[in-house]
Amino acid sequence: MRILVANANTTEAITLRCAEAARGAASAGVEIVPGTPRFGPAVISSGLENAIAAHGVLDLLAAHAGRVDAVVLAVSLDTALDAARQMMPCPVVGMTEAACLAACMLGPRFGLVTFGGTESYRQLIRHYGLGERCSGLVGVDFTPQRALVDPEGAVRAVAEGVAGLVAGGADSIVLGGAALAGMEPALREAAPVPLLDGMACGVRMAEALVALRPARAQGGPMAPVRGRDSVGLSDALAGLLRGG
Amino acid sequence: MRILVANANTTEAITLRCAEAARGAASAGVEIVPGTPRFGPAVISSGLENAIAAHGVLDLLAAHAGRVDAVVLAVSLDTALDAARQMMPCPVVGMTEAACLAACMLGPRFGLVTFGGTESYRQLIRHYGLGERCSGLVGVDFTPQRALVDPEGAVRAVAEGVAGLVAGGADSIVLGGAALAGMEPALREAAPVPLLDGMACGVRMAEALVALRPARAQGGPMAPVRGRDSVGLSDALAGLLRGG
Amino acid sequence: MRILVANANTTEAITLRCAEAARGAASAGVEIVPGTPRFGPAVISSGLENAIAAHGVLDLLAAHAGRVDAVVLAVSLDTALDAARQMMPCPVVGMTEAACLAACMLGPRFGLVTFGGTESYRQLIRHYGLGERCSGLVGVDFTPQRALVDPEGAVRAVAEGVAGLVAGGADSIVLGGAALAGMEPALREAAPVPLLDGMACGVRMAEALVALRPARAQGGPMAPVRGRDSVGLSDALAGLLRGG
Amino acid sequence: MRILVANANTTEAITLRCAEAARGAASAGVEIVPGTPRFGPAVISSGLENAIAAHGVLDLLAAHAGRVDAVVLAVSLDTALDAARQMMPCPVVGMTEAACLAACMLGPRFGLVTFGGTESYRQLIRHYGLGERCSGLVGVDFTPQRALVDPEGAVRAVAEGVAGLVAGGADSIVLGGAALAGMEPALREAAPVPLLDGMACGVRMAEALVALRPARAQGGPMAPVRGRDSVGLSDALAGLLRGG
Amino acid sequence: MRILVANANTTEAITLRCAEAARGAASAGVEIVPGTPRFGPAVISSGLENAIAAHGVLDLLAAHAGRVDAVVLAVSLDTALDAARQMMPCPVVGMTEAACLAACMLGPRFGLVTFGGTESYRQLIRHYGLGERCSGLVGVDFTPQRALVDPEGAVRAVAEGVAGLVAGGADSIVLGGAALAGMEPALREAAPVPLLDGMACGVRMAEALVALRPARAQGGPMAPVRGRDSVGLSDALAGLLRGG
Amino acid sequence: MRILVANANTTEAITLRCAEAARGAASAGVEIVPGTPRFGPAVISSGLENAIAAHGVLDLLAAHAGRVDAVVLAVSLDTALDAARQMMPCPVVGMTEAACLAACMLGPRFGLVTFGGTESYRQLIRHYGLGERCSGLVGVDFTPQRALVDPEGAVRAVAEGVAGLVAGGADSIVLGGAALAGMEPALREAAPVPLLDGMACGVRMAEALVALRPARAQGGPMAPVRGRDSVGLSDALAGLLRGG
Repeated sequence: MRILVANANTTEAITLRCAEAARGAASAGVEIVPGTPRFGPAVISSGLENAIAAHGVLDLLAAHAGRVDAVVLAVSLDTALDAARQMMPCPVVGMTEAACLAACMLGPRFGLVTFGGTESYRQLIRHYGLGERCSGLVGVDFTPQRALVDPEGAVRAVAEGVAGLVAGGADSIVLGGAALAGMEPALREAAPVPLLDGMACGVRMAEALVALRPARAQGGPMAPVRGRDSVGLSDALAGLLRGG
Repeated sequence: MRILVANANTTEAITLRCAEAARGAASAGVEIVPGTPRFGPAVISSGLENAIAAHGVLDLLAAHAGRVDAVVLAVSLDTALDAARQMMPCPVVGMTEAACLAACMLGPRFGLVTFGGTESYRQLIRHYGLGERCSGLVGVDFTPQRALVDPEGAVRAVAEGVAGLVAGGADSIVLGGAALAGMEPALREAAPVPLLDGMACGVRMAEALVALRPARAQGGPMAPVRGRDSVGLSDALAGLLRGG
Repeated sequence: MRILVANANTTEAITLRCAEAARGAASAGVEIVPGTPRFGPAVISSGLENAIAAHGVLDLLAAHAGRVDAVVLAVSLDTALDAARQMMPCPVVGMTEAACLAACMLGPRFGLVTFGGTESYRQLIRHYGLGERCSGLVGVDFTPQRALVDPEGAVRAVAEGVAGLVAGGADSIVLGGAALAGMEPALREAAPVPLLDGMACGVRMAEALVALRPARAQGGPMAPVRGRDSVGLSDALAGLLRGG
Repeated sequence: MRILVANANTTEAITLRCAEAARGAASAGVEIVPGTPRFGPAVISSGLENAIAAHGVLDLLAAHAGRVDAVVLAVSLDTALDAARQMMPCPVVGMTEAACLAACMLGPRFGLVTFGGTESYRQLIRHYGLGERCSGLVGVDFTPQRALVDPEGAVRAVAEGVAGLVAGGADSIVLGGAALAGMEPALREAAPVPLLDGMACGVRMAEALVALRPARAQGGPMAPVRGRDSVGLSDALAGLLRGG
Repeated sequence: MRILVANANTTEAITLRCAEAARGAASAGVEIVPGTPRFGPAVISSGLENAIAAHGVLDLLAAHAGRVDAVVLAVSLDTALDAARQMMPCPVVGMTEAACLAACMLGPRFGLVTFGGTESYRQLIRHYGLGERCSGLVGVDFTPQRALVDPEGAVRAVAEGVAGLVAGGADSIVLGGAALAGMEPALREAAPVPLLDGMACGVRMAEALVALRPARAQGGPMAPVRGRDSVGLSDALAGLLRGG
Repeated sequence: MRILVANANTTEAITLRCAEAARGAASAGVEIVPGTPRFGPAVISSGLENAIAAHGVLDLLAAHAGRVDAVVLAVSLDTALDAARQMMPCPVVGMTEAACLAACMLGPRFGLVTFGGTESYRQLIRHYGLGERCSGLVGVDFTPQRALVDPEGAVRAVAEGVAGLVAGGADSIVLGGAALAGMEPALREAAPVPLLDGMACGVRMAEALVALRPARAQGGPMAPVRGRDSVGLSDALAGLLRGG
């Protein structure tokens, strides 16, 4: 089984770190294929950058269509997830989506902790229709940059955020954002509830979907498009819009 | 990996059929352990029977606590799912819950088709907070008994239900109820959208959760109970309430 | 008129206290019949115990079917309420449900105060579809045991919780849990909004329903079941599943 | 106990019919006091008339403040209910509100049937936060006038509406509007689920609230106003705004 | 273009101040016509007064029907807005509604700040179906009276409220209530997000609707009523109920 | 005042038609500036194309930043609206958003009619938090191409859709999609409720926002980004990510 770990940021270092995490989480025999978009924001940190990045990640996916068994979007805002599902002939999973759905199988309500603002995550969870399952979001006042310099301080700060969410009714915690990806082991001791890591959840959910072999939609909003013209897109992307 | 396929009906024939389906869906090397409650309704077909059956299925699970790696509830109403999660030291997955969550990773809105009334499913999906993701439910006018005698008629009737749901905006279909479990292959041709089988989804989701090794809640509503007295329960169940 | 005050805990002392409260609240001429389940948790304090207790309380009710005019569930989580309604030939009311609905007739939004965790109450209110009418829940850090030893401290702690709820927009307060049942008079002075006691509301709502003489559902999800087999249930409960 | 049956229409014949129904539904010893506003629409049949009528019914209630033990609003849109609750020193119940809340104690979802348009009822149920408990509304194509001439045709038409609601998942039916008030006995035979009559529910709920003796709010949005000036209102109404 | 600025309070000084604000906000060539009800509460400060005031403001509007091109309700609770729309042959806009809708075009979630209680605003926003767009409401502990004496203190207090709302996720702020109307310039410096003034938004939205020349509803809940009798209403209001 | 009418399709003929409509709807003295993206789908007809088009329309807007007073997105799915608002120093309005908000000022519930599938519109309205204000959506079985050949047939088909929506409770109708833009006059006669044209509403709402001169957010999710790197974007777009 080949799983494309598709970054939506154009920073290849992030891609490699995510691919590494994916390899650590995958079943034996799964090949992880890292992918970085050719153009777009270096690091998505706002709704604006996320909207721009959709084109880049779809362009990246188009180049792999038919050559991988599944895709995991290695970007915490699950950039262009719905569109990617419509376009690709294989399952596509978002890392935050996967963590939220896994959390739903552990208890009634999850919290989400991340670095910085929470508005984009709030909108994402609402978009997934999971608002009632989310007890709250906490944005820790820390940056990914500072976390690289002061990893222990970062863990302490996140652990405080986790404690606040648990006090507010969360029975599991989604770790939001690539910067928190590696932290699960360090936090595990301190956290009184299970923690969900997006890359690990994404890879295992992708494997599960591949095993279920769902048919591709032939009609409705998820059916592949056909016969659509475009201007200035890559051959691969334009080809998928034109279809067969 | 050992997965308990726990029926909440006391009809062992159903347990065996579900275990068979689970074996067909599981990864290589997974051992499926079938389980049937010692007491309770023969076949759950109402909210009343479902409420009574909760005790029986928890009694069954208690007897396997610590001896399996995961549980799949092999009953379409996911009987006592939240309570089972609080009680068991391993992941517990409901077959309808698993199918609904898998459907969420295929497109914006799923439909559900079943034999008979849909009210219990409507309440279940609402309880899961997935009401916004469900485009509709169709109860086909057919009984499990009649389906055994006229399997082709059953497939035709379900296919009609599927078509109605797709026309109403569903981009995937959850097959609700044990009686529809084996039908996926026969329906696949006719259905313009992917179909989700509860046992297959349940087993694969259980495998994914086992792989993620989530910590057990130490506090909050999902933490194990401790020091609780009871009257007239089995030793295993009473023991789990007493804890320690 | 005979009203069964049905405990779902197996602790008879609780039953007797609730029956006493019911007698104090009932109209002249109403006979209160106390009932305690034969098996189940001693005191329900978690979702797990509540799920187990459903069987016991339905077993208890089955023994009184046809011999009482109404049932009030004397348990703060309204254990097995929907199932009891489907099973019994008479009105069945939950004490917390009754308090919430009475509160709805006093103003736009009620709060709920209880001892300990609030998650089960949050889920119950959401299950009743009353989430928009509830301004908040407060779990006072006190135990029923401690309240017996320090009743004045308990009243002070609950009064603080009430004040917090009123500041948050509640215009009435539901007292959640048997442990708060007797406290209404002591709190009344201090509370700037009306307080709703579950047993009093339950008994008066049951009387109102009996007076309205609602027909029993002949179809749909609330119709009595018929011809259903079971294993290992009491004669009375098995008989109601078999019907006729 | 004295209960004011307060019409919000200025047609006294409607008041008398409602008072008659209230007497038939009340407990022994309850005195029913009919009241008709001094000004306002003859028969409320639109949101516009309902908004105008609020003043008239509050003017009527003000004249009875302190002289009755409870009020039942005898108008199907529960005109000015929230304001009446804030103003009056006794419980105030709306007839449609009371029927909806009683229905909530009979099963998961009620339907509502009425003559003519359903939009005002939809908004009312949504205002009560009961949208999730309502399975649907049916507006029968019949007028109150025609029902007087052809009562059997009216019953047939309403029975059809009831059947449609039951097919759509209702397990009880609220009869909306004064014109359907007397119909419950004639419909009872044909309906497979219980029917709720607004006046009967309103009177019994009012009795229950009186028995519970809820304290009056001293603060928050339901507290009585004090020291408010006004222009051109009746002495009684202006007096209640001034307070003290 | 003539726009009626219709107060629902009977205090003419408020009307004149609102009309002044409206003139400052209107396009060149727009004539602002101030209007004060003949009867009703002096200053609406509760749900009760708001319900009474509906009649007065509709009475006022009826006297201007056909003689103005649009109406802006110059009252922060948008008194009788839906009814006014059904009654008038021209567009009617509420000042708080207009501010909320304008806020929706600036970002995902607005907050609302006002003097005193927030419950009426919460209900209003919920009535508009905009609950998901509102991040929170803050009631500043200040009175309109005190604001006249200590305008700088009022600005400081409101600015604190604004800061709290922004911290809670608001990306724009609706200034609720006539008392905050003139404050926008003084607050603008300090506020990190845009502020919406009800009168300015109301006037500009009214101009936009007039320009769009929407047809009047001929059927459904917004169609004008016809042939309706009434008692004791003004000739103008009674005439609009009777229709053509 | 200069308003950019920004198409998100790369078909210039659509841009010109929209600009024409905008000129017809604008106030005297408003200059309409048409804009077409340099790359992207020719005509957006699916969620996939819409996601790709976001980049192109943001690229187009970036080239006009600081040189126009407002933007109207001339594309029925309001492509990249939130991101455009964050990026641009002036108000940005979506044509469907503007029509929905204008409809909210005409009555309680609007319907939406369009050619083809409705799922994208359903999601858009839900994204705007206006689900409760929308009574339904109808997708007429017609194509823009066929409408060019058979305009009278198109009007008849849309009129049928309008009638269905009105029967279902709509009191105004949003015309969704560029293909319905010119149809309002032809439909007006037949429609019993007001019709909202997206371009007209968009232009007038943009004018209103410009007049209100809202401050730009300095913090929170709508604040402009600053210091962000990117790869392969146009100078204008990259410049706005880098900021001042």
